[in-house]
Amino acid sequence: MQKIKIHEVGPRDGLQMEEKIVPTKTKIEWIEQLFQSAVDIIQLGSFVHPKHVPQMADTDELFKYFSKKKPSSIILSGLVLNEKGLERALNCDVDMVCLGVSASETHSMKNTNMHVEEALSRVITIAKEAQSAHKIVQLSVQSAFGCGYEGPISEDQVLNIVHAYLDAGFKNLSLADTAGHGTPEQVKHLFGRIFKLDDSLELTGHFHNTYAMAMADCYAAMETGVQTLESSFGGLGGCPFTKIAGGNVCTEDLVRMLHRMKSRQDIKLDPIIEVTKKAEKFLGRELTGMVCKTGGIKV
Amino acid sequence: MQKIKIHEVGPRDGLQMEEKIVPTKTKIEWIEQLFQSAVDIIQLGSFVHPKHVPQMADTDELFKYFSKKKPSSIILSGLVLNEKGLERALNCDVDMVCLGVSASETHSMKNTNMHVEEALSRVITIAKEAQSAHKIVQLSVQSAFGCGYEGPISEDQVLNIVHAYLDAGFKNLSLADTAGHGTPEQVKHLFGRIFKLDDSLELTGHFHNTYAMAMADCYAAMETGVQTLESSFGGLGGCPFTKIAGGNVCTEDLVRMLHRMKSRQDIKLDPIIEVTKKAEKFLGRELTGMVCKTGGIKV
Repeated sequence: MQKIKIHEVGPRDGLQMEEKIVPTKTKIEWIEQLFQSAVDIIQLGSFVHPKHVPQMADTDELFKYFSKKKPSSIILSGLVLNEKGLERALNCDVDMVCLGVSASETHSMKNTNMHVEEALSRVITIAKEAQSAHKIVQLSVQSAFGCGYEGPISEDQVLNIVHAYLDAGFKNLSLADTAGHGTPEQVKHLFGRIFKLDDSLELTGHFHNTYAMAMADCYAAMETGVQTLESSFGGLGGCPFTKIAGGNVCTEDLVRMLHRMKSRQDIKLDPIIEVTKKAEKFLGRELTGMVCKTGGIKV
Repeated sequence: MQKIKIHEVGPRDGLQMEEKIVPTKTKIEWIEQLFQSAVDIIQLGSFVHPKHVPQMADTDELFKYFSKKKPSSIILSGLVLNEKGLERALNCDVDMVCLGVSASETHSMKNTNMHVEEALSRVITIAKEAQSAHKIVQLSVQSAFGCGYEGPISEDQVLNIVHAYLDAGFKNLSLADTAGHGTPEQVKHLFGRIFKLDDSLELTGHFHNTYAMAMADCYAAMETGVQTLESSFGGLGGCPFTKIAGGNVCTEDLVRMLHRMKSRQDIKLDPIIEVTKKAEKFLGRELTGMVCKTGGIKV
């Protein structure tokens, strides 16, 4: 199996729905521990208005704190939603800017108050600015495998967005299963179609475990040649603007699978498990991952 | 995707590790509700000595109760461990006898106090008797993808057992990932090798979610052409004689995946979810499945 990169989105997607605000000091402690795991990319936060997502209010502060204090091998990413967000991101030295639009009209309206078409042209404009500022840019399609409001999303809707990204010259693309509706067959089919457009693309899968499919979807994505998977420690997370939100695929469960598949034996499991245990203590509930309870396989 | 048969093993594998004894009356209520889901096979219990697994003490009674009261479309199976167990099974009208050996010497000793070789010849003798009594016979290899005590189990160890089953004329075989160590790649490779021996075999996959791999393993098994999957409502279960026991793949999560993949839209989700909710209430804890919490996808 090919080498899969892990993009840890716990500090952003993992925490954004949590009501109990994690203090900046605590986030720093967790993120430093995640550095020890040697995952490839960590998403520190979202440049959203603090009024909308109070948990993300310290995103700029986190980037500033880590700009001089992070291992050079680890990329720090931030989610950018609009022009103001990009301005903030450029001011605080992010390595990688993530932006996206939803393939679902209803989800797009609830999330951004814009139709897909309008959101798409705006996102591409912002992405070009980020590129001009020499940032790594990842463009995503949210609700790519179904929508809690609309139900099935046609592959062609997703492909239209992908074509717009490609036409604008972007090659680092992510498909997100925001609602958790995707089946492994869907995942294989859709990523397969995209790789057929251009086999030099850098593709990422982002799966939610709302209906217990996330690990199977990750495996299906790996089978198609997807290079990066996004996940959250403890399986935390979910989009606040989707109908039924389920957690992200759990990083430590996914990493253990990659260990066993000899895809990424270099990523350390224990620091991730420790962060999950700290998060469980802080949030006052058991999280959904399995490996945190059972540990890695010792024999 | 092909039509996958569901073998619900909750009343047996699901309950066998539970300390709180489920009264026979309650089991009957749950099993009757499982009938409504129209799964294909239900494993009512294990013909083990009640001293070893007290939860299974009413197995004969359950079979006798249902012998005249079950839908003709549903097959009732029972696990048989020895000659005495087969005698009991034949006395109470089981439809299907399941027997197996472990591919791990250590697990075999702990489970049966016999070496694999000895257990194998004994199981084949009993299986032939069951066949002579016109029962459906399923022969399994436990710990087929790794062992909590021994670690990796070689494919050849598993294949040796499979060859012995085939040589004795049995074609209905199951591979069980008792320890939950299996990766989807392993699952595809091993089932692929077995189908190459004889593509008319009737193969079953039995996966535990100890390390969050069970749904991905089910999908991988489906990809190789495996016809039947074993699962437990609520993701209950685990072998009392393995080192770290994790629950079975969760029936309602698996069935929802089969709905979405258009493999089995005839199986009803709600009765299974209701049984899981009753089991949660009875056992006094939340079970691990996702669909029980989120429901099916409505749109």
